[in-house]
Amino acid sequence: MSMSGSSFGRIFRVSTFGESHGVAIGLIVDGCPAGIPLSEEDIQKDLDRRRPGQSDVTTPRKESDTVQILSGVFEGTTTGAPIGMMIPNTSQRSKDYSDIKDLYRPGHADFTFQEKYGIRDYRGGGRSSGRETACRVAAGAIAKKILEHHGTSILSYTTQVGDIRGQHFDASVIETNPVRAADPEAVDAMVDLLTQCRDDGDSIGGVVETRVTGLPVGLGEPVFDKCDAVISHAVMSIATLKGIEFGEGFAAATMRGSEHNDPFAIENGDVKIENNKAGGILGGISTGADIVFRVAVKPPSSISKSQKTVTKDKKATDVEVHGRHDPCICPRVVPVVEAMTALALVDLLFLQANSQLK
Amino acid sequence: MSMSGSSFGRIFRVSTFGESHGVAIGLIVDGCPAGIPLSEEDIQKDLDRRRPGQSDVTTPRKESDTVQILSGVFEGTTTGAPIGMMIPNTSQRSKDYSDIKDLYRPGHADFTFQEKYGIRDYRGGGRSSGRETACRVAAGAIAKKILEHHGTSILSYTTQVGDIRGQHFDASVIETNPVRAADPEAVDAMVDLLTQCRDDGDSIGGVVETRVTGLPVGLGEPVFDKCDAVISHAVMSIATLKGIEFGEGFAAATMRGSEHNDPFAIENGDVKIENNKAGGILGGISTGADIVFRVAVKPPSSISKSQKTVTKDKKATDVEVHGRHDPCICPRVVPVVEAMTALALVDLLFLQANSQLK
Amino acid sequence: MSMSGSSFGRIFRVSTFGESHGVAIGLIVDGCPAGIPLSEEDIQKDLDRRRPGQSDVTTPRKESDTVQILSGVFEGTTTGAPIGMMIPNTSQRSKDYSDIKDLYRPGHADFTFQEKYGIRDYRGGGRSSGRETACRVAAGAIAKKILEHHGTSILSYTTQVGDIRGQHFDASVIETNPVRAADPEAVDAMVDLLTQCRDDGDSIGGVVETRVTGLPVGLGEPVFDKCDAVISHAVMSIATLKGIEFGEGFAAATMRGSEHNDPFAIENGDVKIENNKAGGILGGISTGADIVFRVAVKPPSSISKSQKTVTKDKKATDVEVHGRHDPCICPRVVPVVEAMTALALVDLLFLQANSQLK
Amino acid sequence: MSMSGSSFGRIFRVSTFGESHGVAIGLIVDGCPAGIPLSEEDIQKDLDRRRPGQSDVTTPRKESDTVQILSGVFEGTTTGAPIGMMIPNTSQRSKDYSDIKDLYRPGHADFTFQEKYGIRDYRGGGRSSGRETACRVAAGAIAKKILEHHGTSILSYTTQVGDIRGQHFDASVIETNPVRAADPEAVDAMVDLLTQCRDDGDSIGGVVETRVTGLPVGLGEPVFDKCDAVISHAVMSIATLKGIEFGEGFAAATMRGSEHNDPFAIENGDVKIENNKAGGILGGISTGADIVFRVAVKPPSSISKSQKTVTKDKKATDVEVHGRHDPCICPRVVPVVEAMTALALVDLLFLQANSQLK
Repeated sequence: MSMSGSSFGRIFRVSTFGESHGVAIGLIVDGCPAGIPLSEEDIQKDLDRRRPGQSDVTTPRKESDTVQILSGVFEGTTTGAPIGMMIPNTSQRSKDYSDIKDLYRPGHADFTFQEKYGIRDYRGGGRSSGRETACRVAAGAIAKKILEHHGTSILSYTTQVGDIRGQHFDASVIETNPVRAADPEAVDAMVDLLTQCRDDGDSIGGVVETRVTGLPVGLGEPVFDKCDAVISHAVMSIATLKGIEFGEGFAAATMRGSEHNDPFAIENGDVKIENNKAGGILGGISTGADIVFRVAVKPPSSISKSQKTVTKDKKATDVEVHGRHDPCICPRVVPVVEAMTALALVDLLFLQANSQLK
Repeated sequence: MSMSGSSFGRIFRVSTFGESHGVAIGLIVDGCPAGIPLSEEDIQKDLDRRRPGQSDVTTPRKESDTVQILSGVFEGTTTGAPIGMMIPNTSQRSKDYSDIKDLYRPGHADFTFQEKYGIRDYRGGGRSSGRETACRVAAGAIAKKILEHHGTSILSYTTQVGDIRGQHFDASVIETNPVRAADPEAVDAMVDLLTQCRDDGDSIGGVVETRVTGLPVGLGEPVFDKCDAVISHAVMSIATLKGIEFGEGFAAATMRGSEHNDPFAIENGDVKIENNKAGGILGGISTGADIVFRVAVKPPSSISKSQKTVTKDKKATDVEVHGRHDPCICPRVVPVVEAMTALALVDLLFLQANSQLK
Repeated sequence: MSMSGSSFGRIFRVSTFGESHGVAIGLIVDGCPAGIPLSEEDIQKDLDRRRPGQSDVTTPRKESDTVQILSGVFEGTTTGAPIGMMIPNTSQRSKDYSDIKDLYRPGHADFTFQEKYGIRDYRGGGRSSGRETACRVAAGAIAKKILEHHGTSILSYTTQVGDIRGQHFDASVIETNPVRAADPEAVDAMVDLLTQCRDDGDSIGGVVETRVTGLPVGLGEPVFDKCDAVISHAVMSIATLKGIEFGEGFAAATMRGSEHNDPFAIENGDVKIENNKAGGILGGISTGADIVFRVAVKPPSSISKSQKTVTKDKKATDVEVHGRHDPCICPRVVPVVEAMTALALVDLLFLQANSQLK
Repeated sequence: MSMSGSSFGRIFRVSTFGESHGVAIGLIVDGCPAGIPLSEEDIQKDLDRRRPGQSDVTTPRKESDTVQILSGVFEGTTTGAPIGMMIPNTSQRSKDYSDIKDLYRPGHADFTFQEKYGIRDYRGGGRSSGRETACRVAAGAIAKKILEHHGTSILSYTTQVGDIRGQHFDASVIETNPVRAADPEAVDAMVDLLTQCRDDGDSIGGVVETRVTGLPVGLGEPVFDKCDAVISHAVMSIATLKGIEFGEGFAAATMRGSEHNDPFAIENGDVKIENNKAGGILGGISTGADIVFRVAVKPPSSISKSQKTVTKDKKATDVEVHGRHDPCICPRVVPVVEAMTALALVDLLFLQANSQLK
């Protein structure tokens, strides 16, 4: 689906720019239909969910993510013209990073960017910084609006932190706890674990789950732009993710066909998928049942514990990455996964418009 | 990376066509550099690995996959012109499928194709049939050649069948056992399990692992065409796969940053990644260390046990899918995963050519 | 619009392969909606128009262009799956070209292909041969069907040969004369001129005009995929064309705004464009009025008169290109221009489906 | 080559946004190699050439085009990350346009935008305004830098205004006269004609010619992304252009093959194209000889003479488009044609990197 390193989407396309310490980050949404009510408030709402500094268990770094719409909207409605948006960078503190400009932080992209480009913007990770995810969320806010217009909702939440797994699902608690967990009974243990890790100068991984409800049947373009393939591309492009699984996922490896196949039934005169172990997708095309998938989130690489590394000049050294970092990135990944899922699905929705002769 | 439902790749692009019961399947490889020695034998070798009917534990169906190169090669060398290839369909037995033309087989794409297109080629799954994977393997054979020219090898193998997990790795046994397992000590148990399932009229899932060695550092195009995002798109477009994970994958969710981060060291004057829990990719760009990833393979949906389903006319019914089907699809998925990985990586290799001013 | 050297189209996409002396030429049409009646006859009709050997003033070379549909059609209707087609090469006579394998024919692509690829298939021009246009015509036949379903017709014809310009327009004569001229009064002079050139061992240029009627208003994607920009890309990719102009074209350079602007009026309660000097496009978007454009066709480069040239080894020499060549390529370009126009417009038609919120 | 309505380029890709009366216009350049020195001054230089208000014969409207680079440059050098740029809109005077908000100006895109999108930003043409060309020029400045690094120069100039044709070529005078003509002897007559038209409340068309010197041989991707096809797409997407012709262009229609074919010769041990009537391209691939092409520029549609038109409510009416408009748009089109040519060629240059096995 992607069209270039910094563009995603064939019809509804977002292109982004910006690194953590440049003047600003921003994006262009092209291919958005005309006639959609749109304001900065619509975008800001989702950006505010993504911001750091929202609780004791996320980084206290303040980043203002005040978005400005620069084009493509007239008298409160999209015109069909590309929508340019910009978010100034205001939380830049270059001296936070000057001590690491000549070495490679383990788990970070410092080494690979240097090798690939021959030059590295060492301030805060440059283009590899998580800052660029604000642009994904901004574009995703528009995509979500369109999907909601078609009755589709996307909901992501933390389902696992370390070895603590949520068992129950209650959507109403997701935005009320700092982990964005959906199981109220698991929250305390998760917070305790995060706090412990942070106090240790360490970090911890987790799992974020996503449910898409009300998606029309028929989305996905075989054989290469299948619904799960496109979602995988979109979501796995988010930094820190180490895996994605749909429906039963890796558990399906141990199942028999007689267990895993979803029976069909008739309900209210319509075809209904029972069990939905497939996770909403058959043959790469949405079935109308909920799409369910999970992503594996690695422990954030920035920890203050001493780590063994090397300098640009190829000398062995040690590094302690001080600063204001998240012990677990799951709560901040949640809105980004929603946004990327929305971008994938809205593009597939638009492609579906031409599947049958009209 | 994909450009349409039936095309994959931005520079090195493959477009495929063909369904299980049409006249032929085929493909076009565009963007292949001139100067590469190429013959039908190069392609046939990989196609023969993919064919069914190779052992007692795979389907006895005979499919000839004799490929013919139609263009793009002159006096044994690629010319830079698009390479057209065709594989005739010769194993078509329409009467095998006529009893299922009016109902939806559980786990198959019958329902979704009918909904998406308003019409379904019910013979053998039509475009959703696994037959199209022969075209991926054909294109992948060329991609592999180019990668090997650059010192890169791709090796996939079955690492799990049901709950039987391979513990050891011996590349030399992969092509000598019907499961394509890499652990000689696990083969017998795996074969027994497959045989049991087949005798039960059932099927079983598994996991296929892939190792890419000798990949140059620097492949991947942040932020959307990252190395792992593009591989995920390519590989997750293969039917029957329910998940993909890189390096530690979902195990990283329970790890601490101090455990998961790979230290850097100097070896022979070069930067070396220790441990490689990251699985060869940092910041979405290849590090030069082995890329390691696993895919979850669902149990094949075609089983002869009776299953509950519905007809096109929305009436409840039962179905037993008789025929000649695989009890586990892992050994046949292995060459397809290698091919898709090769297609993803060769395209990223070509994109890397322009990363620095020359 | 194009996605690669051998692909054209973003949604309705054709990929082609094949050179003059390979085994076959062929194509894949991806993104064709399901539900369209399609048979080989539909395609063959247009291919037969393109074939050489149809008159005394075109080359007597016999090329069979018998197309075979290999996929994507079931029980006479498109399924939405990619449509693969193949046309075998049967008129190959390698010895026709062996004397030119070591030199560069003036006006041909021998030199540039050698430089670009480091290797050249010297038989008949290889991929640069006009043979590949058969694939464009095959894909265009499907595109035309879809457009006709929407009330759109595309008609091309020769409007000038050398300095003989057609003055009148009568669509009914186009297929009845060997020049495919639309002015019955100019045909004889045009044929005489062609005959004279052929007897001189020379060739002559011309102009082909195209009219698109009944195109819906609103096709074109500002600012880069404007209707005229996309048509220009599609059509100017046809070999032998040296220019394209819309509406008044280069004559507009000498006109005043008060002359060139088309007034708007109301007719039958609808907005109507008067005069239509703009040629059916305003701001890059179709107006609903006829699109009119012309292309400049160079004199074919293959002439038997002696020409000065060089060998691959960089030695001066002379060449007489003997063989069976067209003295003017306009009549054979006509169906190719129609096909490329259809491919451009059907893709824009599909993109228009998502311009307004639904 | 284009990837969406607002993106152009497959590897070196520009995406733009912005309309005449929004907050700002801007762009993202993706795929720019790392290691290129770049500053606002590099971009501003070309933007200043494009600005209106530079002479008596162009509009006196003041538009500040002060560009700001927001990302992708570190310590004065490109990093390989996308380069975001913004140009604020400061010359907005909405009351200039309020009298035309309910009618369709002849020759403008008011009608087509209303039909396509169902909504029209009537202020100054919205996205159809020439203001967006500033973004093309900004991106083109970077593309030109890269091409110059490879020895390639692009030069455009006015070669015709109305029926006054330049006969001589002197590059040194182009930037010294308000028409950007290259023939010092034609300037006075051209200026007189422009002045006359402006005094009449009318406008006049013209022709802009472009010469590309020092282009490497081998650029162009047969069969659809040929050098001339891609240039045609890029350049014909500029508003006001009604045609493009390469080399002899439409004059080739009257020529014989023996006249039009360029002989090959050897000069200094290298293959040389004589005459170059082909205009630098053979078989769609650059030959190394100068690329020469011309575009037809229509007379600007905004004239103060009374014109017949209709309102949105489909009532007949008249309009006089008052304001500060150019009598001839050629001098302002010149830098835009250079920019689009540069964008087309730099993308083809990058694609050429992978034509032969390395």
